[in-house]
Amino acid sequence: MKNFTVKELLEKGKELNLQEVTVQGWVRSFRSNRFIAINDGSTIKNIQIVVDFEKLDAKILKKISTAASLKVKGEVVESQGAGQEIEIIAKEIEILGEANPDELQSTILQPKQHSLEKLREQAHLRFRTNTFSAIMRVRNSLMFGIHKYFNENGFVYINTPIITGSDAEGAGEMFSVTNFDLEKELPRTEEGKVDFSQDFFGKQTNLTVSGQLEGEVAAMGLGKIYTFGPTFRAENSNTARHLAEFWMIEPEMAFYNLDMNMDLAEDMLKYVIRYALDNCADDMQFLAERFDKEQTQKPQNERSELSLMERLDYVLNNKFVRLSYTEAIEILQKSKQNQKKKFQYPIEGWGTDLQSEHERYLVEKHFKTPVILFDYPAEIKAFYMRMNEDGKTVRAMDILFPGIGEIIGGSQREERLDVLDEKIEKFGIEKEELWWYRDTRKFGTVPHSGFGLGLERLVLFVTGMGNIRDVIPFPRTPKNAEF
Amino acid sequence: MKNFTVKELLEKGKELNLQEVTVQGWVRSFRSNRFIAINDGSTIKNIQIVVDFEKLDAKILKKISTAASLKVKGEVVESQGAGQEIEIIAKEIEILGEANPDELQSTILQPKQHSLEKLREQAHLRFRTNTFSAIMRVRNSLMFGIHKYFNENGFVYINTPIITGSDAEGAGEMFSVTNFDLEKELPRTEEGKVDFSQDFFGKQTNLTVSGQLEGEVAAMGLGKIYTFGPTFRAENSNTARHLAEFWMIEPEMAFYNLDMNMDLAEDMLKYVIRYALDNCADDMQFLAERFDKEQTQKPQNERSELSLMERLDYVLNNKFVRLSYTEAIEILQKSKQNQKKKFQYPIEGWGTDLQSEHERYLVEKHFKTPVILFDYPAEIKAFYMRMNEDGKTVRAMDILFPGIGEIIGGSQREERLDVLDEKIEKFGIEKEELWWYRDTRKFGTVPHSGFGLGLERLVLFVTGMGNIRDVIPFPRTPKNAEF
Repeated sequence: MKNFTVKELLEKGKELNLQEVTVQGWVRSFRSNRFIAINDGSTIKNIQIVVDFEKLDAKILKKISTAASLKVKGEVVESQGAGQEIEIIAKEIEILGEANPDELQSTILQPKQHSLEKLREQAHLRFRTNTFSAIMRVRNSLMFGIHKYFNENGFVYINTPIITGSDAEGAGEMFSVTNFDLEKELPRTEEGKVDFSQDFFGKQTNLTVSGQLEGEVAAMGLGKIYTFGPTFRAENSNTARHLAEFWMIEPEMAFYNLDMNMDLAEDMLKYVIRYALDNCADDMQFLAERFDKEQTQKPQNERSELSLMERLDYVLNNKFVRLSYTEAIEILQKSKQNQKKKFQYPIEGWGTDLQSEHERYLVEKHFKTPVILFDYPAEIKAFYMRMNEDGKTVRAMDILFPGIGEIIGGSQREERLDVLDEKIEKFGIEKEELWWYRDTRKFGTVPHSGFGLGLERLVLFVTGMGNIRDVIPFPRTPKNAEF
Repeated sequence: MKNFTVKELLEKGKELNLQEVTVQGWVRSFRSNRFIAINDGSTIKNIQIVVDFEKLDAKILKKISTAASLKVKGEVVESQGAGQEIEIIAKEIEILGEANPDELQSTILQPKQHSLEKLREQAHLRFRTNTFSAIMRVRNSLMFGIHKYFNENGFVYINTPIITGSDAEGAGEMFSVTNFDLEKELPRTEEGKVDFSQDFFGKQTNLTVSGQLEGEVAAMGLGKIYTFGPTFRAENSNTARHLAEFWMIEPEMAFYNLDMNMDLAEDMLKYVIRYALDNCADDMQFLAERFDKEQTQKPQNERSELSLMERLDYVLNNKFVRLSYTEAIEILQKSKQNQKKKFQYPIEGWGTDLQSEHERYLVEKHFKTPVILFDYPAEIKAFYMRMNEDGKTVRAMDILFPGIGEIIGGSQREERLDVLDEKIEKFGIEKEELWWYRDTRKFGTVPHSGFGLGLERLVLFVTGMGNIRDVIPFPRTPKNAEF
């Protein structure tokens, strides 16, 4: 007799009619002392077990409660009831693990909107809820879709370092990594500074905020690479959009200019969203219903104009509008919104950084498609972006999505050593620190481009969830590193 | 005119005969002022460019040197010379980036055995060498093969936390993560201890050494999961086998006993090695030749009996022998090796931990196949492994490979709360710290199993390299966190 997962059973359906099978899982519900709904995580759907309580040992019957785990042997039959094609007539039920209903708050397994927060504190039950398990399967599908896309397109997956001795990208927001015993006095140099030469790595080290610079180095030999790993921000932001630890995807391509970079980013986003929709249809249907229901409970003016599926179709079926920063400023300045002073941050003119309200105006009101903004003022972007002929803008791009704002940020990189050096100096970065990065511009430098995609932002968009903590298995946020 | 990668050009071959193409890459060699070998990282092979130096601008000709980058437009023709099917007759050559031969030590791009170490300090050139780029493509293939295998078998990829507040697995060897300014006096409690409640996460945090415990939590809802992420050891081991930062794969399966766990591990290893051989044939051929050549340069008694390809076939084509620890001790005790006192650590009897020399004896001398050892003494294994009926062994397993020793370690987990609690106490672990882990045994506990595979160990085995630092892009070791 074969062991089946719930997913396999439901997919084979009537093929298995009258066969004996074994299935294991956790009880989702038990009603009328007769119908047990079992789930094993392989799908959002449950399999219905039908028991003849008169024949079943009373001691076992008593232990069949929500969250208990069972091993069931029985016969597959066509279901009499609505809602499922097949069910299993139990011949033998073994209780693998009980779940004392008094200890278990049953509400937790039927999460309503307000209990998502509580579930984050209950890791052991969180993975057993419909909502969170659906999110995790969709997240899995997006991650595999990303690997598949890059693999099919000739990219090499590169693991850039997590512990880094380089702090060129923004020292203030990095976590320190040390092997010093913090309870003891730290060793000091003669000048009274901490003597990191005595620490594990012989220098001060931090957790990476981005693998881009190292990714560029790899692309200068391997051609097309991508990173996919954890990155960190020690920002004290307790919002629904920030995590201290999150996963980032950063492709980097030799011989790519900014246009090719935009083409790749748009193509990849559409591919992976389509992949998740195709491979997680049941989960996405559940999440779409959840999202749409949630909207009806919001005040009219906070509701999404589009359903979740419409929002995804809107991204899949529209060519993203490509618009220079300069054109965007003109549109925003002339907008009624701006003229009626409805923006919290009025558009003062060329050079100001765009706020989320401006990005959303462009995407949701003006163009009603995703937008790629490019050629930003050099002052508001990073040192490594390629300077345009105008001497004041750089070849940066941001991809803006409805409801979520920036989902991708990227650029063509400055491949000319002299121009790069000017920028390094202007940004006050220590040139010696970046010797290995500068060396890629000394020996066979080539035009190249890349971008960064925050995984959790993408999962948030695809699942329609409101809080980024609900789309990652174990969120790290200020004052929270449980588990 | 289409841009082609070198790989695309070589794959299409004669199909492209007489077509005009553009190709970009770095110069690997330039001989007789006539033949340029170009590589762009897409394959280990180069494409040959034929130039008519009499027609070419002398200024450009002068700049064509090893490591310079070029954009070449030309016509594909069947090659007259041996070694390649096609070549390109250059019509137009653009120098993208020069590489001053005086600054560039040309030996570095033709690495011999002794320069691998030097290359680790030269990240910008390392990715352009045959050896390292081949390793990176094989590593990429193994990684994708792993994701593909688990995806096809219904596993959910779970990102367990990198920063962890839990230190149940071995506190001594963990790196600390902090947002305190280490230059300043750290805040102290009244008892004089560092007051971590004032740190970013409100508690003491470390870099993870394993995602297993969190992975178990996820498997208790999702059924079958795997982690694939960086893990850390603050061990001061400066050897060819240790890294402070390395990547680990840890599957965890609900409803799996130890036999199913062994089946899965053996099947997965064979699948991913086969996948890399099938998808990186050119790179593997290069690495195999490199390995075999390296062997001839070693003293007779240090040489591998098998060529690299034979060693891989040996794993692919043999059923792994499964042997209990107790049986292994008997074999070892009776071995000539032991009786002639040829082991550095003589086998004293049941209960001693096996050393690498013993593992290699079993694999390479006695059985001549990979070996799975199981049912180890409880004392020498971790607290979470399932206790056998004998009360003295646990359901652990280690998979031993030729030349490399342990490649996988795993176990069936202790799912019985009372037995687990006894072990937690015995091992001196704080029970309260593990409340979330213990809760999985309170509510619907089920038999489950899992294992850990160190990615770099696997890459080392497949590529035949000798030093683990040569199979990871940016190695982190004591006193080294460059880049």
